[in-house]
Amino acid sequence: MNESVKNETELESLGEKGNNSEEIFNGLILHVFRDKVTLPDGKPAVRELIRHVGAVAILPVTDDGRVYLERQYRYPVGKVITEVPAGKLDYLGEDRLEAAKRELREETGLTASEWIDLGEFHPAAAYCDEKLTLYIAKGLSRGERELDEDEFLDVFCVHFSEIFDEVMAGKVTDAKTQTLILKAAVYLGYLKR
Amino acid sequence: MNESVKNETELESLGEKGNNSEEIFNGLILHVFRDKVTLPDGKPAVRELIRHVGAVAILPVTDDGRVYLERQYRYPVGKVITEVPAGKLDYLGEDRLEAAKRELREETGLTASEWIDLGEFHPAAAYCDEKLTLYIAKGLSRGERELDEDEFLDVFCVHFSEIFDEVMAGKVTDAKTQTLILKAAVYLGYLKR
Repeated sequence: MNESVKNETELESLGEKGNNSEEIFNGLILHVFRDKVTLPDGKPAVRELIRHVGAVAILPVTDDGRVYLERQYRYPVGKVITEVPAGKLDYLGEDRLEAAKRELREETGLTASEWIDLGEFHPAAAYCDEKLTLYIAKGLSRGERELDEDEFLDVFCVHFSEIFDEVMAGKVTDAKTQTLILKAAVYLGYLKR
Repeated sequence: MNESVKNETELESLGEKGNNSEEIFNGLILHVFRDKVTLPDGKPAVRELIRHVGAVAILPVTDDGRVYLERQYRYPVGKVITEVPAGKLDYLGEDRLEAAKRELREETGLTASEWIDLGEFHPAAAYCDEKLTLYIAKGLSRGERELDEDEFLDVFCVHFSEIFDEVMAGKVTDAKTQTLILKAAVYLGYLKR
């Protein structure tokens, strides 16, 4: 058993070779494909996957340690959940920081003078190519929000400690929100070794 | 702006009502639906979504603070990534702890005498109903692993501090793995306020 962490790169012995990609569904947000692949042992297999344009998620933090969050009804899980502001790129390859600035402004009315990149995030690498970039936004100024026509969400503001406790208690189930709050807790010095 | 965190429950003013569900694709792992819904303002809209059986993810921790992880090629993202052991439920409603015990044993050969539930996780609530349950497994014993026929993955073992550093440095992109490592860092006392 190997004892070291390698970087997340191509490892020849585990890789799969894609031979053929069939489009199954070209929806408004879901783009579903069925690809024929060759497994590492040479056998054929099928991989079903969603292709996604990519997304950004932002934790806006005030100078006195409060954060802005959203409550939004998520139809697939059938309830209102707590999330950090987030949104899809407008097009494949869009500058992610620009997308983050736009999504933060549209959903919360906030602009920020300082942006900290907390890294990448694959929500469901087994069946979706979506990649999010996670940001902390600081130096906040308030403005007017501009929601999309079919977007309904409540914005609210709490002390960081409150949402951190909710994450640890399992009351925040959204994936990107859990990771971003926890990473920010370390980054902002709220948690120490 | 509301100043308190509410539980993640139905909020009437944000809710959407599903009227009609159309199956688009019934694949081996992806089950795609297009539902007609009524928005909070009474207008109609369409929600595309994936229905998923549910899953579990497990961080196995040794008595001396090492953890078992996997490297697996994920076709959608086109590379080998580092993940905690994880797997789908065998059927809707399967006992999640039993599923976690099975997936840990099959993928790593490990059994555990102590299981700690770290809560639920929605990877992509905007378009997928998948819910994972996150576990720490302790009191480990080694046995033989039993991979599925088309499963190719490397199991390796590192000190917790090493994988924690990799998560904070952005080198681990898998969603469930980031959240589970960070939650475990607090739960196991590796991080303190």
